[in-house]
Amino acid sequence: MGRISVSIIGASGYTGGELLRLLLFHPNIDIKQITSSSYYGKFAYKAHPNLRKATSLKFCSVDELEKVDTLFLCTPHGESMKKINEYQKLADKIIDLSGDFRLNDVAEFEKWYKQPHLKPDMLNNFVYGIPELHREEMKSAKFVSSAGCNATTTILGLYPLYKNGLVEIDRTVVEVKVGSSEGGKKASFATHHPERSGAMRSYKPTAHRHAAEIIQELSFGEKIQIHFSATSVDMIRGTMATSHVFLKEDLAEKDVWKLYRQAYGNEPFIRIIKEKEGNYRYPEPKLCIGTNYCDIGFEKDPHSNRLVVISAIDNLMKGAAGQALQAFNIMYGLDETTGLEFPGLHPI
Amino acid sequence: MGRISVSIIGASGYTGGELLRLLLFHPNIDIKQITSSSYYGKFAYKAHPNLRKATSLKFCSVDELEKVDTLFLCTPHGESMKKINEYQKLADKIIDLSGDFRLNDVAEFEKWYKQPHLKPDMLNNFVYGIPELHREEMKSAKFVSSAGCNATTTILGLYPLYKNGLVEIDRTVVEVKVGSSEGGKKASFATHHPERSGAMRSYKPTAHRHAAEIIQELSFGEKIQIHFSATSVDMIRGTMATSHVFLKEDLAEKDVWKLYRQAYGNEPFIRIIKEKEGNYRYPEPKLCIGTNYCDIGFEKDPHSNRLVVISAIDNLMKGAAGQALQAFNIMYGLDETTGLEFPGLHPI
Amino acid sequence: MGRISVSIIGASGYTGGELLRLLLFHPNIDIKQITSSSYYGKFAYKAHPNLRKATSLKFCSVDELEKVDTLFLCTPHGESMKKINEYQKLADKIIDLSGDFRLNDVAEFEKWYKQPHLKPDMLNNFVYGIPELHREEMKSAKFVSSAGCNATTTILGLYPLYKNGLVEIDRTVVEVKVGSSEGGKKASFATHHPERSGAMRSYKPTAHRHAAEIIQELSFGEKIQIHFSATSVDMIRGTMATSHVFLKEDLAEKDVWKLYRQAYGNEPFIRIIKEKEGNYRYPEPKLCIGTNYCDIGFEKDPHSNRLVVISAIDNLMKGAAGQALQAFNIMYGLDETTGLEFPGLHPI
Amino acid sequence: MGRISVSIIGASGYTGGELLRLLLFHPNIDIKQITSSSYYGKFAYKAHPNLRKATSLKFCSVDELEKVDTLFLCTPHGESMKKINEYQKLADKIIDLSGDFRLNDVAEFEKWYKQPHLKPDMLNNFVYGIPELHREEMKSAKFVSSAGCNATTTILGLYPLYKNGLVEIDRTVVEVKVGSSEGGKKASFATHHPERSGAMRSYKPTAHRHAAEIIQELSFGEKIQIHFSATSVDMIRGTMATSHVFLKEDLAEKDVWKLYRQAYGNEPFIRIIKEKEGNYRYPEPKLCIGTNYCDIGFEKDPHSNRLVVISAIDNLMKGAAGQALQAFNIMYGLDETTGLEFPGLHPI
Repeated sequence: MGRISVSIIGASGYTGGELLRLLLFHPNIDIKQITSSSYYGKFAYKAHPNLRKATSLKFCSVDELEKVDTLFLCTPHGESMKKINEYQKLADKIIDLSGDFRLNDVAEFEKWYKQPHLKPDMLNNFVYGIPELHREEMKSAKFVSSAGCNATTTILGLYPLYKNGLVEIDRTVVEVKVGSSEGGKKASFATHHPERSGAMRSYKPTAHRHAAEIIQELSFGEKIQIHFSATSVDMIRGTMATSHVFLKEDLAEKDVWKLYRQAYGNEPFIRIIKEKEGNYRYPEPKLCIGTNYCDIGFEKDPHSNRLVVISAIDNLMKGAAGQALQAFNIMYGLDETTGLEFPGLHPI
Repeated sequence: MGRISVSIIGASGYTGGELLRLLLFHPNIDIKQITSSSYYGKFAYKAHPNLRKATSLKFCSVDELEKVDTLFLCTPHGESMKKINEYQKLADKIIDLSGDFRLNDVAEFEKWYKQPHLKPDMLNNFVYGIPELHREEMKSAKFVSSAGCNATTTILGLYPLYKNGLVEIDRTVVEVKVGSSEGGKKASFATHHPERSGAMRSYKPTAHRHAAEIIQELSFGEKIQIHFSATSVDMIRGTMATSHVFLKEDLAEKDVWKLYRQAYGNEPFIRIIKEKEGNYRYPEPKLCIGTNYCDIGFEKDPHSNRLVVISAIDNLMKGAAGQALQAFNIMYGLDETTGLEFPGLHPI
Repeated sequence: MGRISVSIIGASGYTGGELLRLLLFHPNIDIKQITSSSYYGKFAYKAHPNLRKATSLKFCSVDELEKVDTLFLCTPHGESMKKINEYQKLADKIIDLSGDFRLNDVAEFEKWYKQPHLKPDMLNNFVYGIPELHREEMKSAKFVSSAGCNATTTILGLYPLYKNGLVEIDRTVVEVKVGSSEGGKKASFATHHPERSGAMRSYKPTAHRHAAEIIQELSFGEKIQIHFSATSVDMIRGTMATSHVFLKEDLAEKDVWKLYRQAYGNEPFIRIIKEKEGNYRYPEPKLCIGTNYCDIGFEKDPHSNRLVVISAIDNLMKGAAGQALQAFNIMYGLDETTGLEFPGLHPI
Repeated sequence: MGRISVSIIGASGYTGGELLRLLLFHPNIDIKQITSSSYYGKFAYKAHPNLRKATSLKFCSVDELEKVDTLFLCTPHGESMKKINEYQKLADKIIDLSGDFRLNDVAEFEKWYKQPHLKPDMLNNFVYGIPELHREEMKSAKFVSSAGCNATTTILGLYPLYKNGLVEIDRTVVEVKVGSSEGGKKASFATHHPERSGAMRSYKPTAHRHAAEIIQELSFGEKIQIHFSATSVDMIRGTMATSHVFLKEDLAEKDVWKLYRQAYGNEPFIRIIKEKEGNYRYPEPKLCIGTNYCDIGFEKDPHSNRLVVISAIDNLMKGAAGQALQAFNIMYGLDETTGLEFPGLHPI
């Protein structure tokens, strides 16, 4: 495998910085350019202090972009659909980390995003970016739309159950707990430390956009309903979904275990967590920090047909930059774990 | 009103300390004795450093207890049912902050607590300790069983909906987020700072005991189901319930607002929180720290019949010591807010 | 004592909000007006969510101010010296919580604040606002300039040593650790939660303005030197000073203890903390949250003439609003602790 | 270079776990055995949940140890001097991460550790484990004693100044701020989350053992004094030293900069941090989490001859496991950064 050249558009934000970190240490990749308007002309480490000593790259402008093999788009939502035509001229492959091309159905986009889509004809050109569901399509894909962090957490947690038709499709309630990095790098009174630290804040009890992706990816035949809600808690990185599903027929925990093993037994980035005792008996996002893992656990309610599924990721990794690189590896026939070997830290 | 004498059994734990703090500043109360086995003979401030300069009380043993008007029991679960006979000889009135006498039905107790009840005949002598539901019974009560913190949060959040028969009774999912003080004062590897700090830990996905109280208090006629789950997050004080209920008929948010105003408009310790924008648009437990408030908010799902109700308390106050004192005030015909005026801090 | 009317200028910030909370519950005070430009016309609780249910006051503008007995100025540094003439017409007494009138010497002001003083002739009219040092002057004062939070912590910790001439005057090193509320309510990238949470950030290693106040207040005869440094840590409220002083002659810890008892034995808001073991053997700011206490402890270095003095406060209370109210109580001949009885919480 | 076999004694603690993580990903190392008494027979990931999927190693007992090239000792202080004779039979080289062999002088050991040393004759066989100071000796060393975390932070921050004789040798004050992982894995009431979270706790104002190492390593000719103090703050990983030194002669900041560049310009794990503005103008331990970096910055006091030096590390990495592996790489002639390439995360 020869060298692969890539550039990152919007590289000064948290997601762009995380992707830059991963790409810098990837053995097959040459980073050609990184763009930023706010950090134009400055060293990468001015935005990403962890990269001091790791790179002497400087930010350039979008106008200065040269041709590369792959472009990563880390721009805010709404930007990539504006410029996708120009970007196509610059690269063979595009991986978009924004929300613009995640939904296949323009009506769904407009229902959840409350705005018109500027490139509805391109929606079907993008593969939805969760490799565990779309690995085969990715192998030949030109365009990948990286999945939302909350959506990734939820979908990976529930996929084996929905795929096998085991769930009452209109009853699932998903309660996602998220850290502050999910909101990005822009400071506001909502993220002001005295306000945000120690918070347990319901920021989107209903109508969260990521619900649309979840419904799309977990509907097999019939369209499902997901009763989704998101709450901010006091952490920086981390997303955890507590999903309450109601089983159509009685399943013992060992049957559920088999189902997940069957679905994910060969997946390099899924860990099934189910200990009888101790601190680590269910997934916990802090154990995923810096890694591309999605940890999944579950418990059957002894008093009802409810199954509680707990899934956890690092929102900037498996929920953004890490998953994008995983998709990239697949698109180029590389070992899927290349550049994603970091196992995480404990304690952290 | 003359002076009322009280003693606290089990006064060296977090709940006992919080109650001691409140009683020390209560204008009608004389604290006679406080017991502790582990701190026997020591000053109260050795266990409760905030009370340095506030009291010169020392801990004594249970054997040394003298007669008082009211006994507060802050002992671990399972203790008060062992000794309730002796305690009755010592006081006219007893307020038990443990879980022993919360359930009316011995079968329910044994189902959820997985142990036999030692005083089943006394279960019906206790008034369940949420004043907003049982104020009238409290006025003449001899025994009050203070409600569980998670149960209080959930019940107060959902009471107007269930009382008025508006909810599909088998579908409600309640996801409670709790701080570390809920586990009490005993250190363990689960509460070791490097393990517990930054945690987002599913500690009881199903079969939580407090579900039994919630079912008891919200069943009007028909027995309801509550799909309950509890997750630990990185805070010390605070409980927040995100309750997903499904409405039998369509209700606009303004109708829901009216319902809550009708139920709680005169309640001194309920605040209905619903702002259109800003950091404070839903309840948040950190704003309840040190107060006896239960803050309640809600949002109607525009895409379904789901109503998300958010309720928040300080688990040591409205979830334990504060609510116990509120009950006490009612039992003695005092202004319900006496000794509970602290409005909380911001920022915190 | 009749009712005392007061207004707060700049009441929507954190200090203004804390003061408003205290004044609302003060038995002798009527709050006439509170001003804010950014919250003009809105209810107080929109800025201070803890005050919902506690007041129906609304913010007005400075132009609408009416005459009162006392004005509290909670405006940003540099504002009160601009408008002090107008404010004098509105009130008999003024308590300024900003830094404008803390220093007696205009040259010192200009050295540390790097700007000209607009009212140098008034500098000597203000009593420096630490009651433990200036109680007698406060009794007849018309103007009090409330002390800086870091300065208060340091001065109270070191006062008995300097007052008694026990310290080498050019060697003291003071390392202050501060929470995020010290920076006020204005959000910025420095206070953005993903940046500020978990931080241990040297924000002012040298040349901190509060050093000037400390030097002023601890110079008895000879002018002293204070080698001061401030570091931000991950908490919201709280200031802790670790002061390393070098004793001129050998003092045993019990002598130091006597010295502090002698100086502060009758002080209502000073607690000397020195336990042999356990979690509470030195002062800790979290135990001061919401209180007006300054906790002070110390340890003698067995290997040198160094004495380490540890002092802790809540920066918004003893470091700002609480101390201002303490001064107010003295100015009006009230019991100094009126409205400041809250003992703090544990755990918190 | 052939494969190098290693075992870890005491591998279930935090330091042992961190070392295990590093060794698992080291390209030249085969881990033969890991010991633990408390986790005997269990999989490594039961103690170190981040290593799930990364290894199938199980803990064995010390009695089962086989010969290897290098033994790493991660046992509690006082253990390795008891068993060093037996360990020598098992391995060519030994790296001890405990404090037993850090001091060269037995009198100093007994002064600071308050216990007799069991192997005083071996003290001089150990190379003190900071590569930046002892790289040449390490190349042929049989025994390395890994340096203390607080000592590493302080020594690396001050070494260029002391080495060049620029500092008044009896005046330096060092204030170290530390996270909770420094105390190890054993839970206690001091580390109980409600007590430890939000803490700013002076845990060792004087007489900290690490002062002895600092004095040893920074004494060039004359014996120096270090006035050392340690304060716990609310973070898990991280040590930051704020060192106040007094310069013998006037040095401009650019001279200090040159001095540090000269000393550390080629060091792979030292970053000199000095930005004019922004969040990253001084070192901050959270930017070192998971890395082997020691970040160093400084500021000259404009009002005196004080220089404030700020240095920061991850206590489990550069302060323990990382630095031990760095030494190992040197001892075997490997590239010093092997297995230590992780650049850290941002935000974190």
